[in-house]
Amino acid sequence: MSFSPSLQELLDALRCLPGVGPKSAQRMALHLLEKDRGGAARLVKAMADAAERVGLCTRCRMLTEDRLCPVCADVRREEGLVCVVESPADLVAVEDSGGYRGRYFVLLGRLSPLDGVGPSELGVDLLRELLAEGAVKELVLATSATVEGEATAAFLGGVAAEYGVPASRIAHGVPMGGELEFVDGSTLYRAIESRTAIDSA
Amino acid sequence: MSFSPSLQELLDALRCLPGVGPKSAQRMALHLLEKDRGGAARLVKAMADAAERVGLCTRCRMLTEDRLCPVCADVRREEGLVCVVESPADLVAVEDSGGYRGRYFVLLGRLSPLDGVGPSELGVDLLRELLAEGAVKELVLATSATVEGEATAAFLGGVAAEYGVPASRIAHGVPMGGELEFVDGSTLYRAIESRTAIDSA
Repeated sequence: MSFSPSLQELLDALRCLPGVGPKSAQRMALHLLEKDRGGAARLVKAMADAAERVGLCTRCRMLTEDRLCPVCADVRREEGLVCVVESPADLVAVEDSGGYRGRYFVLLGRLSPLDGVGPSELGVDLLRELLAEGAVKELVLATSATVEGEATAAFLGGVAAEYGVPASRIAHGVPMGGELEFVDGSTLYRAIESRTAIDSA
Repeated sequence: MSFSPSLQELLDALRCLPGVGPKSAQRMALHLLEKDRGGAARLVKAMADAAERVGLCTRCRMLTEDRLCPVCADVRREEGLVCVVESPADLVAVEDSGGYRGRYFVLLGRLSPLDGVGPSELGVDLLRELLAEGAVKELVLATSATVEGEATAAFLGGVAAEYGVPASRIAHGVPMGGELEFVDGSTLYRAIESRTAIDSA
């Protein structure tokens, strides 16, 4: 199918969105142009505004348009607890889980020497400043459970130790609601290794 | 999770895309702002350009930025054959099926008196002009197989008759590769009703 140039360019540009293939791009473009020009105008404005204004929180590197992100600006959050995550999406996941009331630090990546990602790319200098302030009582390392995520956590554990700040790693094991027979071997191995005593009071 | 205002507005605006819920909107927004600012800029430009330039083909009402869409502008297409579809997406589907070499006419809807969609909203005046020219030898009615689509096809069949142009309806029956046991009753009924003689030459 040959589309007119502007339409084809829109189809191609929509492909930069994650999870959007040729079929969805086509559906989106035709929908916007046929039925929702207002929505398209709003999206253009919102995207241009966000791209222009949104930068990183000066304290935790979360995406925000202000100097401090909503979490860092919230005085009711526990200042002594800092959860280190790899990406803004991970921060949102922890935040949506509901129970966490501390602050965050977003690495925007994970240690990967082959890709040229070292401590300076992950904002470790900013993290050191935070630790040097002395207000942080515990650093919760919530990097992903991959080889690189584990290496990043181990490295940051060392950094925390330099400042005498206790570091912890989030638990790995069988997901809640997970049937044992469908859990992969390495997760199960880890779950058995990290077993905890039952409080039978 | 509370996002900063620009980010929240981008999340909300992304929801106007078909098939994009809160989760995908969040993934898209974070991805664009964290990893693909270039893609975001390109998308903003492409969408603004398309919204400004793309209108309807003056002959068939397909979305295009030129006076004539690529199909209408293509002199190699069979001018005597016009396939009437409900939407640009339907046109693309017929075009992608590969075999059709005629032209199109896009209704941008289907007859639906309760929603205030009558012949004038469907560009029937333009279709009448096309039929009056005398070049059309057959009008293929490819509206959808719904009650409203059937009513639209019946109505357009009447319009074609006024100009002495033969109209045809696309076949309905068991989809290719379809297992009979999974085909719904009304389709199967129609398939048996519309059976064709086997050419056992």
